[in-house]
Amino acid sequence: MSLPSLRLKANADRRLRAGHLWVYSNEIDVTATPLNGFQAGDQAILEAAGGKALGIVAMSPNNLICARLLSRDVKHILDKSLLVHRLNVCLSLRDRLFDQPFYRLVYGDSDLLPGLVVDRFGDYLVVQLASATMEHHKHDLIEALVQVLKPRGILFKNDSKARDAEGLPRYVDAVFGQVPEWVALEENGVKFEAPVIAGQKTGWFYDHRMNRARLAPYVKGKRVLDLFSYIGGWGVQAAAFGASEVFCVDASAFALDGVERNAALNGVAEKLTCVEGDVFEALKELKAAEERFDVVICDPPAFIKRKKDIKNGEAAYRRLNETTMRLLGKDGILVSASCSMHLEEDHLQNILLTSARHLDRNIQLLERGSQGPDHPVHPAIAETRYIKSLTCRLLPNS
Amino acid sequence: MSLPSLRLKANADRRLRAGHLWVYSNEIDVTATPLNGFQAGDQAILEAAGGKALGIVAMSPNNLICARLLSRDVKHILDKSLLVHRLNVCLSLRDRLFDQPFYRLVYGDSDLLPGLVVDRFGDYLVVQLASATMEHHKHDLIEALVQVLKPRGILFKNDSKARDAEGLPRYVDAVFGQVPEWVALEENGVKFEAPVIAGQKTGWFYDHRMNRARLAPYVKGKRVLDLFSYIGGWGVQAAAFGASEVFCVDASAFALDGVERNAALNGVAEKLTCVEGDVFEALKELKAAEERFDVVICDPPAFIKRKKDIKNGEAAYRRLNETTMRLLGKDGILVSASCSMHLEEDHLQNILLTSARHLDRNIQLLERGSQGPDHPVHPAIAETRYIKSLTCRLLPNS
Repeated sequence: MSLPSLRLKANADRRLRAGHLWVYSNEIDVTATPLNGFQAGDQAILEAAGGKALGIVAMSPNNLICARLLSRDVKHILDKSLLVHRLNVCLSLRDRLFDQPFYRLVYGDSDLLPGLVVDRFGDYLVVQLASATMEHHKHDLIEALVQVLKPRGILFKNDSKARDAEGLPRYVDAVFGQVPEWVALEENGVKFEAPVIAGQKTGWFYDHRMNRARLAPYVKGKRVLDLFSYIGGWGVQAAAFGASEVFCVDASAFALDGVERNAALNGVAEKLTCVEGDVFEALKELKAAEERFDVVICDPPAFIKRKKDIKNGEAAYRRLNETTMRLLGKDGILVSASCSMHLEEDHLQNILLTSARHLDRNIQLLERGSQGPDHPVHPAIAETRYIKSLTCRLLPNS
Repeated sequence: MSLPSLRLKANADRRLRAGHLWVYSNEIDVTATPLNGFQAGDQAILEAAGGKALGIVAMSPNNLICARLLSRDVKHILDKSLLVHRLNVCLSLRDRLFDQPFYRLVYGDSDLLPGLVVDRFGDYLVVQLASATMEHHKHDLIEALVQVLKPRGILFKNDSKARDAEGLPRYVDAVFGQVPEWVALEENGVKFEAPVIAGQKTGWFYDHRMNRARLAPYVKGKRVLDLFSYIGGWGVQAAAFGASEVFCVDASAFALDGVERNAALNGVAEKLTCVEGDVFEALKELKAAEERFDVVICDPPAFIKRKKDIKNGEAAYRRLNETTMRLLGKDGILVSASCSMHLEEDHLQNILLTSARHLDRNIQLLERGSQGPDHPVHPAIAETRYIKSLTCRLLPNS
């Protein structure tokens, strides 16, 4: 199969040679290879200005990031065979890491499969395609997934905004076998069911697995508040790890039904209290009622979606964390998480320090958590790192 | 008890109000309160330029950091009573975190006990005093430790360079009870003995506990190389977690005797091979012999002791990590650690990326580890954070 070339301007190959995988449209020598000669989803041979082939790219000619490196070996075009190979490389890592088949199997660029995310729930796979190239190869992908994983069902959960930029329609579809509305998983020894069709993203957030595992020593025998609880990933684990009482707050009645379902699965329903409503409102009411907690988990949705939101977003994190701290008892633990890739860990740390000082409390930073190893970071692509989780201890001044 | 005042210049209180605990000599209003009016080890009431009391400080009038905040409450001078209170606050955290009494009990500024480190090995305590104030209160400290912890023995391991700057003599002395040459501890379910008198620092490095715990899924059934092994903290745990074979390299015959001792304690002696010699030389020889490993752990001593060493130190980390990567098999895991507080985590990550690209290998960053929660970070004091541990996977280009 012969592919067209995509020619870079002089020196535009440097960042790619240094490890990055993305090509920006202003780096293309459009005289030699006009971008309007490509369709979204095409593959091409990326060439340095001098003509040296750098690898195979997937084209998104209408985007700022107009191409992504699929392979540095020009023999490896994206087809079923490469997909099978890549999936086996993904699987061998996850097999090594986990005793049970519940994890993110494919994490996009970091697994050299740009535009593809696959979460595995035992026999069920939930897939997100974010690029035209992956969309064009969906039949190869389904065959490759069936060959490597022999699933009972594959769900395409293609309803993310990222698809709009690629000109792709949004849809949710069981493309292989049958997929139930709720699928089972286990995390850190605790049982869950996740709403893969109706839930957020793929239905479950495997990314905080290790941070949730670290709850255990902090929550035993303690009163815990879980903010933005979704279906209880943190809160139900806290209860299962021995918390005496757990309050879960979420704006979604559907999510809180999930909390109750998951609490019941683990026999901890009587420890859970669900509070439906806006988290900021709920915090006010809990404060007014003079409620105090030993441990508060604060894992909000991303407040910073784009770079231009950084200032307002950081102010929102600040407001939330300070309000949260006011609900902590004398020797309290705050688990403060963020999934905003644009919020730097040091900034979150500084927000916690500033909030603590504003309340005249001493703060010790105990744990610094990140996304689990089934979400590998590509060290050249800052955007592949997004999860932060800081566990701190708040003490009275003395 | 009435204490002298230490008066700050205008605005010099800002950093302290924002959470920091250190006072620099150029921030003092020396006309109002000349530094030569203080002795090393004195306590004073720190005052803002306007006269408002900010707290109690421990004085080191001859140092660049001429005072450290002991308390923000002027009623709390350093005495036996405050030491007992602080030790109880330290202990309550460690009791919550750990099932067994093996941990860093006191971590200096982060535990509001500047100049004091205490490592606990069950009934034995190993103490490092790095300030004249702590040295002056050593009898109070011994009484407080005995009252709170009822130890069988307390060792003062006061042989660090930091003491010279305070004008304190270096000595190692069992100041209470009897302390054996080797004391027992357990970490992540693995038994060890640490040479508290003749070993490095306090005899053991509790700081990497959590990073060592994370070895388990990577080493099972694998061939492992442990560089700068000391007494086997990483290597013996790798063997106990199921590695098929472990090579430990260290320049010290004494350290390697410790490896053998600790391997025997866990019944894994037959899996361990000790290689005595300079690590860079040993790497050359292993390469020449075409040895390959599935997992390499590289936890060198600090290559960057002072800020002015950053450039040379980073070059040394680069050289070491790239050489190390050459010994990895096709799908290899590198655990690359650093205890240099002056090496930023992002710089270490970049060193790994550059090395991998130089060898034309793909790299995935899987785990980002830091010091355990018995070494809390003070979020205002960057120097309290020093441990980095990056686990990455090296794959062939494809």
